[in-house]
Amino acid sequence: MIIGALGPEGSYSEKAVQIWILRHRLDSVGIQYFADIEDAFLAVIQKKSDLSIVPIENSIEGSVGVTLDLLHENGVEIVGEIVVKIEHCLLSKGGPEKIKVILSHPQGLAQCRHFLKKYFPEAELRSTGSTSHAARLAGEFEEMAAIASPEAAECYRLKVLLPNIQDRKQNYTRFIALRAAGKNTAEQVFEQVLCDTEEKTNRPENSSHSAFKTSIIVYLEKDRPGALYEILGAFAKNKINLTRIESRPSKKELGDYHFYIDFEGHISDAIIKETLKDIKTKTDTLKILGSYPAFKA
Amino acid sequence: MIIGALGPEGSYSEKAVQIWILRHRLDSVGIQYFADIEDAFLAVIQKKSDLSIVPIENSIEGSVGVTLDLLHENGVEIVGEIVVKIEHCLLSKGGPEKIKVILSHPQGLAQCRHFLKKYFPEAELRSTGSTSHAARLAGEFEEMAAIASPEAAECYRLKVLLPNIQDRKQNYTRFIALRAAGKNTAEQVFEQVLCDTEEKTNRPENSSHSAFKTSIIVYLEKDRPGALYEILGAFAKNKINLTRIESRPSKKELGDYHFYIDFEGHISDAIIKETLKDIKTKTDTLKILGSYPAFKA
Repeated sequence: MIIGALGPEGSYSEKAVQIWILRHRLDSVGIQYFADIEDAFLAVIQKKSDLSIVPIENSIEGSVGVTLDLLHENGVEIVGEIVVKIEHCLLSKGGPEKIKVILSHPQGLAQCRHFLKKYFPEAELRSTGSTSHAARLAGEFEEMAAIASPEAAECYRLKVLLPNIQDRKQNYTRFIALRAAGKNTAEQVFEQVLCDTEEKTNRPENSSHSAFKTSIIVYLEKDRPGALYEILGAFAKNKINLTRIESRPSKKELGDYHFYIDFEGHISDAIIKETLKDIKTKTDTLKILGSYPAFKA
Repeated sequence: MIIGALGPEGSYSEKAVQIWILRHRLDSVGIQYFADIEDAFLAVIQKKSDLSIVPIENSIEGSVGVTLDLLHENGVEIVGEIVVKIEHCLLSKGGPEKIKVILSHPQGLAQCRHFLKKYFPEAELRSTGSTSHAARLAGEFEEMAAIASPEAAECYRLKVLLPNIQDRKQNYTRFIALRAAGKNTAEQVFEQVLCDTEEKTNRPENSSHSAFKTSIIVYLEKDRPGALYEILGAFAKNKINLTRIESRPSKKELGDYHFYIDFEGHISDAIIKETLKDIKTKTDTLKILGSYPAFKA
C-alpha cells in the first residue's frame, strides 16, 4: 500500500501519515512524497497512491484554500482525519545574525506572522511547497532560515535557532485522508437512499453518533435570502452538531460562495440520511465528501 | 488628508484609492504607501494616515486572513468598500525562457495557481508584501518575473509577457476603507441603542435599505449546537439579506471560530438595531465593525 504525502521527508504531513499507520496498525506501507498539496491530492486519482493525506485547516491560519478547491473539483472520498500538533522552529545552518531570507510553506509564514514582523522585519520571505522543502533549501546557504519542524532540522542537519515560534503556543493542523471515489462511497450510499435501493453500509456497528463525522459541500442560489439559514435549520431540527462551516468563493463572481460543512454522524445513520434528503431539496448542489471516524487525541 | 495603502506604486490598492478619491471627489489627498497589509491597516491607529484602504477578499482566492485578524484585534471602523477588477500579468525584463523565479503577493500566486503549475512547474515562487513590490524586484534581474498589474509594468519598465493569467477571467478584489475608531462609530450608535440614549446617526437621509452594508464579528460558545442557526434566524426573521458569512479561527483551539457577517442595512435602521439587540443576547461577543455604502459598479 502506498500513502501519498507532502514531501520531502520531515514534513508535518509525514507525521500525519505516521499517526495514520500506527492507528490502523498497517504493515508494509510505502510513503510517496509529492512536491505540493495539489500533487499529493491528485495522486489518488492518478493511481500514484492508494491513499493520500493532505492538510485542510490550521488552528491559527484557518483553511487550506487549495485543498478545499481540489475537494470541490475532483471525485475523491474523505475516509479519515488526523490532527497533528505543530511546533514551528526557526532552523538554519548558521547563526541568526546571518539570516537574510526566511523560507516556509505560506501557512508556516502566516502562522508566524507576529514573530517575523517583530524579529525579522527586513528578511525576504519565500514560499515553498512544504515546510520540509524549506528546510532542505536552508541547508544549502547560511543566509537562509526555514520555518519547519524539529524533525526537519534533524533530516537536513540544521540548528534549531528558536523553538515554538508560531504566534500562538497551541497550534494544530487537521489533515484528511483521501481515496479515489470508487465503490461504496458515502455519495453512493446517499444515492441509494434517494432511490430507495439501499443495500448495505460501511458504518461500523456499535459506534455512537459522535464517533463519526460527515463532510459535505453545498451551493446555494446567490440571491435567495435565508438559504443558508434553511440548511442550518435542517441540522438544528434533528439536533445534529455542526463541527465546522466554511465559505469558499465559487470563483464565478464576488459574493458567490460554496459552503463546506462538517457535522457529527455517519451517512448510514437514519437521522443523517433524512437530514441530507431534506437539504437536497433546499440546495442547487449537494456534494457528499465522506463519512469517517472523528479523530480522538 | 492622507490615505494609507499597500505600496509601492502600481499596486491594486492604489487603484482602490484612486476609485475612492474619484467617487468622493476629494481634493488634496496624499497617498502614503506601506510595505504590507498590516502596516497599512495599523497606520490609521498610529495616526500615520487618516484613512487606510486594504484588501479583504478576492473572488478566486477568498478571504485575506491577515485583514480579518486585524479587524478582530484592533479598534477601527469600516467606512466604505471598493471593488477593483484584477488583471494579473506576467511581467519581466527579459524573455519567458529566462524565468527561474516568480514573485507576487501570496494572493497573486494563489489566484494564478493553475497557470503556474502548467507553464512554470519548475520556477521558484517567492512571496512579497504586494504585487507591485514583486514588480519592482523583477525589474532588477532578468531571471525574475512578477505577477502584477499592467500599471506595475509601466511603473517599473517591465514587459508584459502574458496578460490575464489568473485562473478565472473574472477576478475581483474587494477592499475596505478604515478609520480609527473615534466618535459616532457604528459601535457607539449601537451602544446608545442598548442604553436608550440615542441622539443622532450618521446614516444619510433618503437612501434605501440595500444601499448600505453593515459588518460584524460574532463569537459563539463552542459547544452549543445550533448557536449559528439562532444568529442567522435573527436575520431571517427580519428578512435581512446576508451578503457574506466567513469563519476564521479564534486561534484558541482547532474547531473554535469567529464568524464575520456582512448584511444589507445601516446600524441606524430600526430593523437593524432590533436585530442586533436580539443577536447580542445570543452571542458571547458581538463586535460591530461599521455601516457603510455598498459599492455599486
